[in-house]
This record gives sequence, C-alpha cells and structure tokens, in this order.
Amino acid sequence: MNLKVAFQGEHGAFSEEAARIMFGPDVVTLPQRNFDDMFAAVIAGAAGCAMAPIENTLAGSVIRNYDLLLEHDLTIVGEVVLRVVHNLIALPGVTLPEIKRVYSHPVALAQCERFFAAHPGLEVVSAYDTAGSVKMLVEGNRRDEAAIAGAPAAQAYGAHIVTAAIESNSQNFTRFYVLARPDRAADFSCTTAGQGGLAQAGVTNVRKTSIVFRIGNKPGVLYRSLAAFADEGIDLTKIESRPIEGRPWEYSFYLDFLGDRNDPPIGRALARLAGLAENLRLLGSYPKAEV
Amino acid sequence: MNLKVAFQGEHGAFSEEAARIMFGPDVVTLPQRNFDDMFAAVIAGAAGCAMAPIENTLAGSVIRNYDLLLEHDLTIVGEVVLRVVHNLIALPGVTLPEIKRVYSHPVALAQCERFFAAHPGLEVVSAYDTAGSVKMLVEGNRRDEAAIAGAPAAQAYGAHIVTAAIESNSQNFTRFYVLARPDRAADFSCTTAGQGGLAQAGVTNVRKTSIVFRIGNKPGVLYRSLAAFADEGIDLTKIESRPIEGRPWEYSFYLDFLGDRNDPPIGRALARLAGLAENLRLLGSYPKAEV
Repeated sequence: MNLKVAFQGEHGAFSEEAARIMFGPDVVTLPQRNFDDMFAAVIAGAAGCAMAPIENTLAGSVIRNYDLLLEHDLTIVGEVVLRVVHNLIALPGVTLPEIKRVYSHPVALAQCERFFAAHPGLEVVSAYDTAGSVKMLVEGNRRDEAAIAGAPAAQAYGAHIVTAAIESNSQNFTRFYVLARPDRAADFSCTTAGQGGLAQAGVTNVRKTSIVFRIGNKPGVLYRSLAAFADEGIDLTKIESRPIEGRPWEYSFYLDFLGDRNDPPIGRALARLAGLAENLRLLGSYPKAEV
Repeated sequence: MNLKVAFQGEHGAFSEEAARIMFGPDVVTLPQRNFDDMFAAVIAGAAGCAMAPIENTLAGSVIRNYDLLLEHDLTIVGEVVLRVVHNLIALPGVTLPEIKRVYSHPVALAQCERFFAAHPGLEVVSAYDTAGSVKMLVEGNRRDEAAIAGAPAAQAYGAHIVTAAIESNSQNFTRFYVLARPDRAADFSCTTAGQGGLAQAGVTNVRKTSIVFRIGNKPGVLYRSLAAFADEGIDLTKIESRPIEGRPWEYSFYLDFLGDRNDPPIGRALARLAGLAENLRLLGSYPKAEV
C-alpha cells in the first residue's frame, strides 16, 4: 500500500521520524509549511494521513493541533510516541570550535539551554524549523554555523552530527496523533501486516479513545462529565481545555482514556456524557503507543 | 499607599491598563521585559505586586505564567478581567490610506484578521509587544506605519487612533492574577478603601480560590481529586494542566473555584485532596473579578 503521510516541517523533521517509526522506512512523506496545510492535505486526499504532534513532555500541548482537530472532521487512527534527541549538526568536517552561530526552532533551543550555558561563545538564533535549519546551512555552505535537529535531518541533507544528544533533559518525548479522513479510517484498522490494513509499528494491543465536548458555564457539569468515566472505571490519561471563541469562560474539553469505543463501559460513559455535554464528538479509537 | 505594580511590556500595555483599573490611575507601574523579570521584581521587593495575564478568552492560557507560579512562591491576592480592544494607531495626522505596514504582537495581529482581510494592501509585521510597537513608530517618526495596541498606548506616546476596535471578535477578554509576596499578601486583604488595605476596583464580593497539585500516573486519581470538590458542591471555574519536567505523562493541575479557603466545605475538600495528591499548594483566595 502506497501510503502518503503529511507532516509539518522539512524532510528530516521529528514528525517525519515518527512517520517512519510507525509505517516503515519506505513510507512516502509530504512536507507541509504549517499545521493548517497538513490538515488540508489530508482533507483534499493528497495524503492518506497526517502525523500531528499533540503534546511534548517538556513543552506541553500543541494547542494549534487541538484547535484544528475541532475545526476539521478528521479521525484519530493511531498514536506514536517519539523520544526527542537534539543534536548539534554542521557541514561535513566542521568541528565545534569553528561554530559561531546555532539555528533552530525556539522550543528546541530552549530544550538545550545547559549545552549553551556550557558554551557561552555560541550565538543562538531562532529559526522556523529544526530540520529546516540544517537544510538552510547546507544550502548556504556555511561552515561557521550549526543547527539543532534530530539525527535524520543530518542524513537528509548530507550534514554531520558534531555533538549528539545535547538536550538538557532526556525525559523528552513527543506524542503524535495519526489523523485520517473518516472514509479512510478503516485502512488503518489493524496493527499487524497481512490483515488487509496498514501495518503499524511502535504500538501496543491496548486501545485508547479520544473525545472532545463542550460544557456550558454551569456549576458541577465538569465534575459530572468526568464522573461518567470514573463510575465505569475508565482511566483518563489526558485532559486538555481550550476556550470557545465568542463564549467567554466556556471551554472545549479534550479527553484521552484507555479502552475502545465499542467496550460496553465506554459506551455507557459516552451515553451519560451525551446527556450533560454539548457537541460531544468521538475523535477516534486507536492502538496505544509504546512508551 | 504608594503601590508599585510590575507588568510585562512597555507603558500603555494591556497589563498596565488592568493595573490602573484595579488600583486607580495614580498607581506606579514598572514595565518589565518579560514574565520572568516581572516575577523577579516582586520577589526582590522592587514591586509590591505583579499584574500577570493568565488566560485570554480567544487565545487561551498564558502557560509561561502558569509555570512561573509553580517555580516561585508568590500568592494570588486579586483578579482583574479586562476587555481587550485593539486599535490601529499611528502618528498624529496620519490617515489610513497613508499606512503601508502594521506592527504588533502576533496574538494581536491574529485577532484582527478580518480587518486585514478587508485591507489587503497592508503589510503585517510581527513585533515583540503591542504598546512597544506604538513606541517604536513614534520614536522613529514613521508616517507610513501603524501599530495595533490598546487606547492607553496611543496616549502614552502621543500617537492617535486611526481606526478603533478593529478586533475580529468582540468577546475578547484577558484575565489577570495580581501576585504578591506571601509576607505582603495581607496588604491586599480588603476590597474597599479605608479599611487599612489597598482599595481594589473591578471586583465583586464573591471569593475565589486557586490551587495547584500533582497527581501520579495512577488510574482514577484525577477523577477522585475533582470529586473532593464536587461532593462539597464547590464550583470549578477553570482547570489547566501542565507537564511535569522529568516525569513523562504526569501533570500539574491548576484549579480555580468559587469560595474562600476559610469556608468549611473548601477546607474539607482540600483536606481530602491532600490525601490523594502530591505537592498540593494553595495559591491564594481573592475577590472574584467583575466580568
């Protein structure tokens, strides 16, 4: 099956690495300028799915993707967790003492603050993308500059890793949702090859489900919404809230929990929640990632 | 009482406007480069309190301030809600047809997208601050440029409002916490003048309380934590979660709810929560803002 995966960033990005972990090294990857374009590529059918980062264990939730989940009708068909390793990358042969400036995405730069504290002579410059910074310095043949990105970015542009694993905290993971059009979701419905679906690696036999709902600004409704899950013994793994445009102090709540939409306890919880919440939407049931 | 209020941004910023609403037009305001410096000014005693934006009804939570609340030992002594009105501001006498470029903070620019759609000839440029953009164009005497900021920024720098209220959505409010050192919190303990404390305007007689706690990655603990409040009939008004550095998939939860720390139901709920959660911290009880 010739799956095309849309991702935000340039070739060599962490999202592309996540796509190769899940779908294998030969998957076709389609770089997108931003998250909006990534969603649009799937909706238009140019890509079979998108690899959308949803939270990082140091930086927190990727709120733009939470908002886009609500704006568009895509289904979560999978989940991947990637260990984020930041490397100092430069042109072949360049050594650390030659480097004057380091480019990367602001989040990556912030996650390497200990390295920069130990090397105060390096000028730090914000750029739009991690892998894109490697691409830029290779295209410009700049031997006094480096970039911070994942190892695949060095390989993608013929650069080399000067110093590996320079992140301040090794407990650095990004969780991605795999998003597909509802009419294509069945293509992703099995997790082992040879069952008529797309093989997915890096996943477990445990199922997870994600939903989003709104609740009015009424006392106790949030608690009663969560009680619907607790009374069925359902384990919540993530709760995220986002403001609702035009309705100050009201929120959309996103929940992730263990179990499949077809499990009877989850069916009962969702039925109860439907009586309390507005705009309840099932975002998808999918295999839980290995962590 | 000669209160000094630290705020992030330049004179004329929305945070400074919030400080004047609460403490009156003659309050001394201390501009700070960033939120870290704002916290530091209060801790060092250079300012009596900080005016910290915590959520906007369109953009969502100000996560840096949530993180700084956890890193530092400041107490929430008040709350202000400001209606955010964006204005197109230029040098005196400049009219809309003369303007080629518009500067502002990216969030402000995004909140005026309908205005820019209606005026496609305007080049949009991101800047570090709303009021700072007004300051910049006045200092540079640039007559072909404008900035987007609140009305006080026009007054602060001798500029004028070319077009008022250009925000796409009028349901645009920012909620601020007033933060003080615990040993200074009593100075803010009354809400009417002449009672020995600082007079605060824009507040109600209803009390609110904010807490933060961590829960381990264990099934059902989040639900049981919230049940402690629901069983006492306490109304949660906001829930926010942030990842815990070094402990992947564990979170700090921030709750706001109605009532004072000394109300018996709240005391019982906090006692129950203390048995479930780690690092429970009371951030403060304060008068609810008028909304």
